[in-house]
Amino acid sequence: MKAFYGDLKLGILGGGQLGRMLIQQAINYNVTVKVLDPDREAPCRKLCDEFVVGSLSDYETVYNFGKKADMVTIEIEKVNVDALEQLEKEGVLVYPQPRIIRLIQDKGLQKQFFKENNIPTAPFQVISSPKQLAESHIPFPYIQKLRRDGYDGRGVYKVIDESYLKNAFTEPSLIEEWIDFEKEIGIIVARNENGEVKTFPLVEMEFNPQANLVEFLISPSTLPFEIQQDAAQIATKIAEDLNIVGLLAVEMFLDKHGKILVNELAPRPHNSGHQSIEGNVVSQFEQHLRAIFNQPLGDTACLNNAIMINVLGEAGYEGPAIYQGIEKVLDCAGVYIHLYGKALTKPFRKMGHVTIVDADREKAIEKARFVQKTLKVIA
Amino acid sequence: MKAFYGDLKLGILGGGQLGRMLIQQAINYNVTVKVLDPDREAPCRKLCDEFVVGSLSDYETVYNFGKKADMVTIEIEKVNVDALEQLEKEGVLVYPQPRIIRLIQDKGLQKQFFKENNIPTAPFQVISSPKQLAESHIPFPYIQKLRRDGYDGRGVYKVIDESYLKNAFTEPSLIEEWIDFEKEIGIIVARNENGEVKTFPLVEMEFNPQANLVEFLISPSTLPFEIQQDAAQIATKIAEDLNIVGLLAVEMFLDKHGKILVNELAPRPHNSGHQSIEGNVVSQFEQHLRAIFNQPLGDTACLNNAIMINVLGEAGYEGPAIYQGIEKVLDCAGVYIHLYGKALTKPFRKMGHVTIVDADREKAIEKARFVQKTLKVIA
Repeated sequence: MKAFYGDLKLGILGGGQLGRMLIQQAINYNVTVKVLDPDREAPCRKLCDEFVVGSLSDYETVYNFGKKADMVTIEIEKVNVDALEQLEKEGVLVYPQPRIIRLIQDKGLQKQFFKENNIPTAPFQVISSPKQLAESHIPFPYIQKLRRDGYDGRGVYKVIDESYLKNAFTEPSLIEEWIDFEKEIGIIVARNENGEVKTFPLVEMEFNPQANLVEFLISPSTLPFEIQQDAAQIATKIAEDLNIVGLLAVEMFLDKHGKILVNELAPRPHNSGHQSIEGNVVSQFEQHLRAIFNQPLGDTACLNNAIMINVLGEAGYEGPAIYQGIEKVLDCAGVYIHLYGKALTKPFRKMGHVTIVDADREKAIEKARFVQKTLKVIA
Repeated sequence: MKAFYGDLKLGILGGGQLGRMLIQQAINYNVTVKVLDPDREAPCRKLCDEFVVGSLSDYETVYNFGKKADMVTIEIEKVNVDALEQLEKEGVLVYPQPRIIRLIQDKGLQKQFFKENNIPTAPFQVISSPKQLAESHIPFPYIQKLRRDGYDGRGVYKVIDESYLKNAFTEPSLIEEWIDFEKEIGIIVARNENGEVKTFPLVEMEFNPQANLVEFLISPSTLPFEIQQDAAQIATKIAEDLNIVGLLAVEMFLDKHGKILVNELAPRPHNSGHQSIEGNVVSQFEQHLRAIFNQPLGDTACLNNAIMINVLGEAGYEGPAIYQGIEKVLDCAGVYIHLYGKALTKPFRKMGHVTIVDADREKAIEKARFVQKTLKVIA
């Protein structure tokens, strides 16, 4: 393999904020980066060696893009996997491996994988028609999820009783028992080609129910050690069962009985790991680079309590973004602003994030609430 | 003033590693960055919104570059100040202010400034001819420094006795009493337009005498509190006497009697502040951005012991750079590699730096020695 510092050309599928933060880290290693994204205004457009505008779902586009790279990685799962498989056959390194992207693209296959590998997850049924949905054996209420292309809360529908069936998705879907969970938790794990596996400490999440997005994330979790250990073991097992090379974000529910159920996987840097930039010895972005380049994985220990807040476009505003309150936020110690370079805001669009670091957890929470009240994106 | 996140266009004079790390930080604020550098392969070339190849000393080039920016800053002092003064007159924000760059460009004026403002510095004399040098009142041995364009040890000559005079510089110069110093120390201070001033904790340096470059830097200093306080007071006084807007690196000697003498100033991010990226709550690059954009200055507290090592081109090698030992270095926890994107190495060229962070100072030093032995840049 070519050395990753200087002579290796890395292609990233997707030019959003995850790619942007990955490039910000890759600068430290002289990595030559090219990016493919359909949006000519994508956050990565100015930061890479080459920016290609094109469809991530088109076979020819993805193939031609990858053919001129030594290695291809993703920052979004919705990419043409056939092209990636062909590239892999022709000797391009593709991490995560195309078979894993294919599995994770389809929530049905993902759940089957959990079941086959004894990974705890909510009871489910794969649904291919409205008729099958009506006859399902999962009791109300349940969650219907499109098998493909759901993202940030889109493609998810709660079926409370029979009356909700008329508005249910008719496309291939998955239904899952409604988990009245105690907490949403997440763990990020990395594996390199040598088989080294490392987990980041467990984090706890709070969702904004209106936007259906992670809004407030606390690292590290203060849940009992056994739960943290369980979560780390589950994440490690999944990474090893998949033989993944790269980063894997494992989203989990903790139910009212202290049992962990795996919700979803993302084989890439993830929103639930942004706090690692300032909060951990290495960040998720550094770890992803180390994993795909088969370098020793970094120390994932927490340096401090860290809270991550997504900076979302304010409801009711659409257009060129105006940021309010930045100066007040910068006046707090240990507060780190990350804007994503998006010119246009719209309601609940992820425009950036803020990480708040403090040795005192309660103070960190207090500061996070202040940031949340103070920093607004309007138009 | 336009908001610095998004709608302000920042021009940076110089596209080297300091500019590169400044951009890496500016990404977090959506700053639109353009860079001017004579080298089309400069480290910033791929990371900015616009990269202009041109001379930093040419009036027209600097003027035309700056005219299309809202604000101009520098990452190197050797720039055309006449152009910057004209830009300032025409309403472009230029930070640091041109008059300060002019003062610091000339080591003679810089020393006069120290003298006029009662800033402790080694006794000196400004020299304009070989005759004046021969008649100087400074006793041997002394140091002769070119008034202009010295950089990284170039333009400095030690005059041990009369026999050395024949090889002395004939250009306008400055001679300084030879200080048999105990330690070289440095402090970085920032001031914003509101007049807020903050110093970073004092650092101690070790030079490579062969390369005449900082090679090993330890943060924070463990010198007695009074010395740290003196140094911070001197740096603050200089920033206030200059009314600088931006970052100011103050290089100092600590003599054998515990007295601090100011050596030189640099009105920009500086090699002696690189460890702040991982070692302090905010980095020098973040602080420079906050200062020039008149934002609240960040908390400069140390997070940990941090040691910075310059990664220099190995003696005897010139050509396309090959990095040896990266994998072994990445295997140490708390070790951060920063490469500067320079394709070609030559002896003692600054190719990157490594920061080593550890709660145990002795362990940090041990790791730093390992990194120094292990990481080599050859061709």
